[in-house]
Amino acid sequence: MYRPEIKVIDCTVRDGGLMNKWQFDDSFVKNVYNSLIEAGVDYMEIGYLSSEKAFSRDEYGPWRFCAEKDLKRITGDGEKKIKLSAMADIGRIDYDDIPPKSESSLDMVRVACYVHQVDKAIALAHHCKDKGYETTINLMAVSTVGLRDLNEALEDLNKSKVPIIYLVDSFGAFYSEDIDTLTAKYFERMPNKTIGIHCHNNQQLAFANTISAIINGINFLDATLYGIGRGAGNCPLELLLSFLKNPKFKVRPLVQCIEEDIFPWAEKIDWGYSVPYMVTGVLNQHPRSAMAHMESDNKNKVTEFFDSVTSVL
Amino acid sequence: MYRPEIKVIDCTVRDGGLMNKWQFDDSFVKNVYNSLIEAGVDYMEIGYLSSEKAFSRDEYGPWRFCAEKDLKRITGDGEKKIKLSAMADIGRIDYDDIPPKSESSLDMVRVACYVHQVDKAIALAHHCKDKGYETTINLMAVSTVGLRDLNEALEDLNKSKVPIIYLVDSFGAFYSEDIDTLTAKYFERMPNKTIGIHCHNNQQLAFANTISAIINGINFLDATLYGIGRGAGNCPLELLLSFLKNPKFKVRPLVQCIEEDIFPWAEKIDWGYSVPYMVTGVLNQHPRSAMAHMESDNKNKVTEFFDSVTSVL
Repeated sequence: MYRPEIKVIDCTVRDGGLMNKWQFDDSFVKNVYNSLIEAGVDYMEIGYLSSEKAFSRDEYGPWRFCAEKDLKRITGDGEKKIKLSAMADIGRIDYDDIPPKSESSLDMVRVACYVHQVDKAIALAHHCKDKGYETTINLMAVSTVGLRDLNEALEDLNKSKVPIIYLVDSFGAFYSEDIDTLTAKYFERMPNKTIGIHCHNNQQLAFANTISAIINGINFLDATLYGIGRGAGNCPLELLLSFLKNPKFKVRPLVQCIEEDIFPWAEKIDWGYSVPYMVTGVLNQHPRSAMAHMESDNKNKVTEFFDSVTSVL
Repeated sequence: MYRPEIKVIDCTVRDGGLMNKWQFDDSFVKNVYNSLIEAGVDYMEIGYLSSEKAFSRDEYGPWRFCAEKDLKRITGDGEKKIKLSAMADIGRIDYDDIPPKSESSLDMVRVACYVHQVDKAIALAHHCKDKGYETTINLMAVSTVGLRDLNEALEDLNKSKVPIIYLVDSFGAFYSEDIDTLTAKYFERMPNKTIGIHCHNNQQLAFANTISAIINGINFLDATLYGIGRGAGNCPLELLLSFLKNPKFKVRPLVQCIEEDIFPWAEKIDWGYSVPYMVTGVLNQHPRSAMAHMESDNKNKVTEFFDSVTSVL
């Protein structure tokens, strides 16, 4: 049995690109695109929507920008059989740089923000909605937000016209009981919104917490192929589709894409569970210290890392 | 807040040894032993209790046997500050080979069995109990046991004198809802027993399912350092102790042991999440086909493996 309201959003290129400055070639992105279509995935988040003034194309690959010319190289001229999404960061995109939906291959813009940016996020999301896009707001790092701030943010989001609000475990700090508690809070404060979930795998709980979210009524689910993503990575898409019962989903195209396109990247960039990510997850900290450690020449010196971030755990 | 009844059993040497025929040198086993003591872990499962007639010491390391002379090399003559456990497989140990508790460094014998072996397991566990050991029965592969067989097995176990019965997810097939359903069944049929949990990580759910088990009232928890174990491995001990709130537990000694003793083994043997293990987990199959694939020269050809075990997933 399945819940038809459930939508799966693949973030392979967008979140994986955090590890390689979005330097995926077109062949990789096309293969992911076609595999997701074949697998029946609902949305592909293909990158960030950024102003060309904010980043240089000499340093960053096309999926930092998601300009229409970039998107067209992937989708071609035929019918687009999956919805495309891009994430917008506050302050890195000018309103005028966002084309109207009628001139774009994008279907959805997701606005990521921290709690102090909620009003700016709502303004940007409203702007995108007025231009014709589906919109979400993804409230990041909610594991570090105090109760009063959270209540206020959720009430502001509830009053907005944005229909989908995400619960984001940016630091991979949540246990299933946190998902239960926060989902109840989100639905209580935003009874008419659709809720989404985006998990990180610092404590090997990204998939499990996504399942907890589904059980609690969350319907927008983020995942990536083989869990590719920053640090400990994300909820693995192949596990998620295997769990979901909707007959439209197929796992084999994902397995094939992992073999052909993700394994080669796994040899070049390093993501997934490791002790430093577990430690920052347990401590409810941004993984930047763990990422720096994992990129150093001493990545196996995990006791030194442990001592550097905490004297008691 | 914590539940004082919770006991943690480290299976690093016993379950990890399935990957290298228990060829851990004494220095490794001593370091694990001392680290577990320092971390406050309740039991160390140091290997299998096997008859010297069943296996050759030329091929298998000492932890396939757990003879008293092997154990003494690790514990020395001082006070033993952690309880030691060994697992006994039906048919691989003669009753006469088991010394009385008064002549052994072992505190607990855990009898592993499949559902059709429950009566033999009870007989062996009773024999060990009569010799003075703590005992458990670990009913394996319960994900493949039909309802009538399960009810009958649990009723037989309930009538036995064995105080601790394990729920074992041998194939890494369970989701949290399975843990909920089966824990309720175990407590319903065996109201006076203590229940334990042993999970495998085929679907990255070993830790999460152990948490679900804790929430459901399960008090004996198996884990291994860095998840070392056959195939996709086990619930990582460092994650479990970080989650548990008992102030006697310390994580740092585990981190240090992982750095010094487990990382070197991670370069020699291969465990942890991979697509073939995920596929057998989803299909509720023994991981032997996935293990054979991972040991072949084609371990990255995961689509071929997928096709070989299923045409539809």
